[in-house]
Amino acid sequence: MPGEFSIKRRIQFAETDMAGVLHFSNYFRLMEEVEHEFWRSVGLTVYMRDSSPHISWPRVSVQCEYIAPLRFEDEVDLRFVVTRVGSKSFHFEVEFVRDDEKCAHGRITAVCCATGPGGEFSATEIPKEIRSKLENVLQPVERARSH
Amino acid sequence: MPGEFSIKRRIQFAETDMAGVLHFSNYFRLMEEVEHEFWRSVGLTVYMRDSSPHISWPRVSVQCEYIAPLRFEDEVDLRFVVTRVGSKSFHFEVEFVRDDEKCAHGRITAVCCATGPGGEFSATEIPKEIRSKLENVLQPVERARSH
Amino acid sequence: MPGEFSIKRRIQFAETDMAGVLHFSNYFRLMEEVEHEFWRSVGLTVYMRDSSPHISWPRVSVQCEYIAPLRFEDEVDLRFVVTRVGSKSFHFEVEFVRDDEKCAHGRITAVCCATGPGGEFSATEIPKEIRSKLENVLQPVERARSH
Amino acid sequence: MPGEFSIKRRIQFAETDMAGVLHFSNYFRLMEEVEHEFWRSVGLTVYMRDSSPHISWPRVSVQCEYIAPLRFEDEVDLRFVVTRVGSKSFHFEVEFVRDDEKCAHGRITAVCCATGPGGEFSATEIPKEIRSKLENVLQPVERARSH
Repeated sequence: MPGEFSIKRRIQFAETDMAGVLHFSNYFRLMEEVEHEFWRSVGLTVYMRDSSPHISWPRVSVQCEYIAPLRFEDEVDLRFVVTRVGSKSFHFEVEFVRDDEKCAHGRITAVCCATGPGGEFSATEIPKEIRSKLENVLQPVERARSH
Repeated sequence: MPGEFSIKRRIQFAETDMAGVLHFSNYFRLMEEVEHEFWRSVGLTVYMRDSSPHISWPRVSVQCEYIAPLRFEDEVDLRFVVTRVGSKSFHFEVEFVRDDEKCAHGRITAVCCATGPGGEFSATEIPKEIRSKLENVLQPVERARSH
Repeated sequence: MPGEFSIKRRIQFAETDMAGVLHFSNYFRLMEEVEHEFWRSVGLTVYMRDSSPHISWPRVSVQCEYIAPLRFEDEVDLRFVVTRVGSKSFHFEVEFVRDDEKCAHGRITAVCCATGPGGEFSATEIPKEIRSKLENVLQPVERARSH
Repeated sequence: MPGEFSIKRRIQFAETDMAGVLHFSNYFRLMEEVEHEFWRSVGLTVYMRDSSPHISWPRVSVQCEYIAPLRFEDEVDLRFVVTRVGSKSFHFEVEFVRDDEKCAHGRITAVCCATGPGGEFSATEIPKEIRSKLENVLQPVERARSH
């Protein structure tokens, strides 16, 4: 799909639980891994320590739907798209695909924040050079259609 | 609130991330902790190994909204209510409250499953004695109103 | 035992793995939890953000021996003792006891560090008021004997 | 080094803690990841569900020394060697190397176990075809020398 960014990721033993499957909370870690890999792929990093002020991206809303369980050693495609870029926030989605089977679908809304000296967050406009990178993988229409 | 079940939980160091706050994925672990404590409080367990077949509760849909960050050593009230009991599923919500401030709000839908010998799940009707326990903490109206 | 500090801790579902037991890496998280609870019990915190410079306690050496597996919902006593206090380091041990059965035994050496503005650590002498708290739970002889 | 098996692994955001570094417990997860990748590289898997009885490898003793902290987005070489193969146990070590700097060094002893129907473990002789794979990466002398 044009604009899509994806990585392959293998499910690790420590990520499973006693029911024998990837624990449901760990899907969010995988969503974040592909997001951060996307940032690196466009020459940025999600945690800009050297910028002044520090920029970070706390989440304000997340969700996930689970369709088929993932298990130890499964290799899964994590397919990342940006579905909306607001003035201070961006929205992305991740599909979890194993052998052409969609196993889960997550959505995350993150807010661009400046971080103060005590670690407090305040929402701020997305800097222009970051915005343009996000818009390169924007797929507002296609994703919307598929739901 | 009548029907509510809650526990106190302290945020641990290993649950924070380099942004200095509880990592967003860990909220789902806390939701599960209060859920499981609820099961124990009514004399049940979420993972019924001794039943035949094994009953477990995979999640089909989860979400969380983050309002104010939680930090290391914060003590948070995890307030659990059941908002709907279907024939095979139940829906619960957890509020994260620190010193009377609501910091996050999560929702989880879980499905009652029988577990086969190879670990596969198949949805099944909620057994009667479990259903009655869930209905004791059912709050369909109150919660709906507060949103 | 005189000088011992302990807490009860229940094993959570997300801490188990597909082998049905507490994942071996999570024992270190539990050791840290009882350590931090000890700090709080003597009016301190392990991460002194308000001191100048910031004091933290990176680990330089850790180990654990596993005797009997811990499982979901097990309630375990975490028994913490300090076995040595050096000029810049301290050594502690944690026994994992379930129903009078010792299930695991861990050891951690941590170093008192000042944290620089870029997050770098430099070893520093343990401040006097902290040292005296540690020495209150010091058990160099008793523990040594039991091995 | 002959007999060595290694993978590259990037440190993820969720693996850091509020001190800004890879949490010390997570080093054990990385050691396990390279171990499991080794098993796959020789055509085996660490969790043999299809064998009868199930074979798994609980840990009996683990340790780690920390030399320099690892941080978010660091890419680290995980260098795995087997240092001893007993009749029922094997011992392996992992070096964490970032840009030619050794940052940590871990050691794990695991025992070959048959898993019973209730999930209980009993130590058993390492099957011959597994033993030969382990001995291919055995480095008892070289590693011993370097310490």
